[in-house]
Amino acid sequence: MELSTIYTPIQEDLAKVEDRLRSVSKVDFPHLSELLDYSLKSNGKRIRPVLTLLSGKFYDYNPDHLLPMATAVEIMHTATLIHDDAIDNASVRRGRPTINKLWNEEKAVLLGDYLFAEAGALTASTNNLRAIKLFAKTLKTISSGELNQSFYAFNLDQGRPQYFQRVTQKTASLFSMATESGAVLSQAPEEAIQILIEYSYNLGIAFQIVDDILDFIGTEEELGKPIGSDLAQGTLTLPSILLLEYYPEDNPIKRLFNNRDKQDEIKLAIDLVRNSPIIQECYQVASDYCAKACRNLILLPDNAGRQSIIELADFIACRKK
Amino acid sequence: MELSTIYTPIQEDLAKVEDRLRSVSKVDFPHLSELLDYSLKSNGKRIRPVLTLLSGKFYDYNPDHLLPMATAVEIMHTATLIHDDAIDNASVRRGRPTINKLWNEEKAVLLGDYLFAEAGALTASTNNLRAIKLFAKTLKTISSGELNQSFYAFNLDQGRPQYFQRVTQKTASLFSMATESGAVLSQAPEEAIQILIEYSYNLGIAFQIVDDILDFIGTEEELGKPIGSDLAQGTLTLPSILLLEYYPEDNPIKRLFNNRDKQDEIKLAIDLVRNSPIIQECYQVASDYCAKACRNLILLPDNAGRQSIIELADFIACRKK
Repeated sequence: MELSTIYTPIQEDLAKVEDRLRSVSKVDFPHLSELLDYSLKSNGKRIRPVLTLLSGKFYDYNPDHLLPMATAVEIMHTATLIHDDAIDNASVRRGRPTINKLWNEEKAVLLGDYLFAEAGALTASTNNLRAIKLFAKTLKTISSGELNQSFYAFNLDQGRPQYFQRVTQKTASLFSMATESGAVLSQAPEEAIQILIEYSYNLGIAFQIVDDILDFIGTEEELGKPIGSDLAQGTLTLPSILLLEYYPEDNPIKRLFNNRDKQDEIKLAIDLVRNSPIIQECYQVASDYCAKACRNLILLPDNAGRQSIIELADFIACRKK
Repeated sequence: MELSTIYTPIQEDLAKVEDRLRSVSKVDFPHLSELLDYSLKSNGKRIRPVLTLLSGKFYDYNPDHLLPMATAVEIMHTATLIHDDAIDNASVRRGRPTINKLWNEEKAVLLGDYLFAEAGALTASTNNLRAIKLFAKTLKTISSGELNQSFYAFNLDQGRPQYFQRVTQKTASLFSMATESGAVLSQAPEEAIQILIEYSYNLGIAFQIVDDILDFIGTEEELGKPIGSDLAQGTLTLPSILLLEYYPEDNPIKRLFNNRDKQDEIKLAIDLVRNSPIIQECYQVASDYCAKACRNLILLPDNAGRQSIIELADFIACRKK
């Protein structure tokens, strides 16, 4: 199923989120305006703001609060990507040169800071203290996850538990924030809020697992960035961890991590993963998380939004780009 | 007068702010804990949290709100310094190696992000929407100011208006936030809030001017960082702008900005500034801003806090380190 079909129930408001993203770049400082315009006019999937809007569909749907919140969620995501790219010295993202590549790392760091603040301001504009506190907590969690990844770069001494902890911090936390804020801002009862948190928390883990699979099996054209970039950064993801489990004695990842100059090992690792049951196993893990994500959705009011978030889980479990 | 004397009315609560800063590093991730401990245990002057506490002294002084807010203000300041040092590739700050030097730039960027979020969480814990919105707005303003500085690095085509705009954005905005939040959280009437904003806005400009003077006349030992660092970064400050006004035809700053390899010109510029009336003129401008800062304080209730903020303005107008 196409994302555009899944997004049908909130299609109009998603267009309004795009308008709001565009209006963020209307500032009285042309250099900043250009940076904002470039970074917010991306061809991303907008999954996180969609989650906020869909989560708002179950109770008192209030666009005055949901639109700024959905916009904030997307801007926060964008800011984390800009800082990620800056510290990874990445050249391409979503098929376009990164901010650090087109401008420089300095601009990328400061633009990210500005965008965190903009996202915070939009969240604050909802006047909802729970959403505001959630925003700050989530940014702490994401930064901790990124720091964890940074401190454990090129470290072979980590397995599945550390991977899942990191994925939870880096990705699931923002997915959770997207649905929790949407639910809270539409006056959902606490039980419904918790169901939507459970949904997006598990969906976020599944999403990241598939992202990590695609870094092995995708093409640069499909992904809009080079494949094998996780290994190049020294980051162990689920496929790499399974590879280490399959070949505990000697394998290209061990050789790369023990000598970072051995960049040729990345291609060998990719080939080894592709010609093994690892990819299928990883998709199965992602699929299990998607199933877990959806298990209590039946308790929510039956509406088109509910159907959409179930279809979104299916989409994420088997997406190829 | 010594700062410790000026701080007397809020001495006990400032010690509590220090305790809270220390407790921020108590997290369940040793690497992050170490980063936080190092960055928050600095020998800074703590002027910004002092401003928050002193501003809270005029009406309903409530430590439950003022202590987290003062802590947030200091953490926000720390985060901006960490990002500044990372993008400037600075090695020393307050006499100690920077985060980017001791760890690396990646850790500095992510730690700064974490600290912005921590400051946001502390601000949110006051449950005061005005303080929360002010926090987000201020971070936007500071980032804009930093971006302005970055885009105009090594650009000779800027004069006093642009300098004052940047100082307002980079420094005065956070000073303003410190007093405005303190006043708001102690239920000050709007008129008093505005007087305290006027105070710290002008105080912040004076503070930055003196900071910029010290980059010319200080010693590395006093400042805890190399002198001439603004020129090395291509940043025009008030003394440089006056030098360009004094010697419009040819001068070391022009030569440096037209050829960044000419690092020897920095020493020549410093000598030229020192042996001119420029320093005295700049101190006079700072002193005028301090006078402006204090002009309406008489309208506030007369207490030890009022005396302190007047003395603080005197201290800032003539500080030598």
